[in-house]
Amino acid sequence: MNKIIKQKIRTIPNWPKQGVMYRDVTTLFKDRIGFKMVIDTLFDRYRESSIDSVVGIESRGFIVGSAIAERLGVGFVPIRKSGKLPAETIGEEYELEYGRDKIEIHKDAISEKDTVLLVDDLIATGGTALAACSLLERLKAQISECVFIVDLPTLGGSKKLSDKGFGVFSLVSFDGE
Amino acid sequence: MNKIIKQKIRTIPNWPKQGVMYRDVTTLFKDRIGFKMVIDTLFDRYRESSIDSVVGIESRGFIVGSAIAERLGVGFVPIRKSGKLPAETIGEEYELEYGRDKIEIHKDAISEKDTVLLVDDLIATGGTALAACSLLERLKAQISECVFIVDLPTLGGSKKLSDKGFGVFSLVSFDGE
Repeated sequence: MNKIIKQKIRTIPNWPKQGVMYRDVTTLFKDRIGFKMVIDTLFDRYRESSIDSVVGIESRGFIVGSAIAERLGVGFVPIRKSGKLPAETIGEEYELEYGRDKIEIHKDAISEKDTVLLVDDLIATGGTALAACSLLERLKAQISECVFIVDLPTLGGSKKLSDKGFGVFSLVSFDGE
Repeated sequence: MNKIIKQKIRTIPNWPKQGVMYRDVTTLFKDRIGFKMVIDTLFDRYRESSIDSVVGIESRGFIVGSAIAERLGVGFVPIRKSGKLPAETIGEEYELEYGRDKIEIHKDAISEKDTVLLVDDLIATGGTALAACSLLERLKAQISECVFIVDLPTLGGSKKLSDKGFGVFSLVSFDGE
């Protein structure tokens, strides 16, 4: 099944810049079979995990995260770029290739000891995901697992998360092919 | 039921600037009951409408749009800010209070004559929604309806859409209270 999911992801060479093989999940999401396969697979994996909320990272993480939250019958919490959330937030900075960026979560988005699923479409170097895990830990959430549709293992992000003790699950992996 | 949905939306006065009453739907989404009510209501309304895809506007429109697409068993298509979509796009500019902005959709995201639901969290002056409708018309989609959780009717956007012949449906309305 994951082979079918993988085939529905479009690869765009040299985007956003020369040398990058961009994995475009929009072709997976627009396909009713592909989108259903993704959500069915995640639902089967987490239906017994007593998830309290799904947390999605802006903005493609909203697409996967919201759909799996709906299927699990739980609430959805966004982690957004700095300055986008209107109420009291906590923030975490992380390194980019050039410079730094910051993500935020509402302070009251998660209750202490809630079990959450952290969702994004793709993990590359893992900077954003690690910052998101820090935010969730600062809110004293239990992170059930960090879920991605695509892992780019050569960029090391999923290993970094595992090394820090976070569970990681990805549906498909691209190894530079 | 819509009264309960409305109560779960948080109002933040003077954000992002003095004089604005910001309607924060994150408190609705994080609430499992509220989130389910939203999706149940939309599902009941559109289950018989032969929707081919749900189109969501970046980025809170992704949250509602993806969940209703999942429930309807159809694909999800994002409309994004300029420069974010990696393959061939068409774009549409629209007026902001100061200056202009641009949204884009992948050219191959929708097939001709597909029936689509256009989804965003909120309609205010309607600039983005009208631009999104233009994009969908240029792709020759049939717009079943434009769906919002919140309408701010005093800002005129929903009337503008209706006047142009687009169906509009909102779950709740805030009239400056």
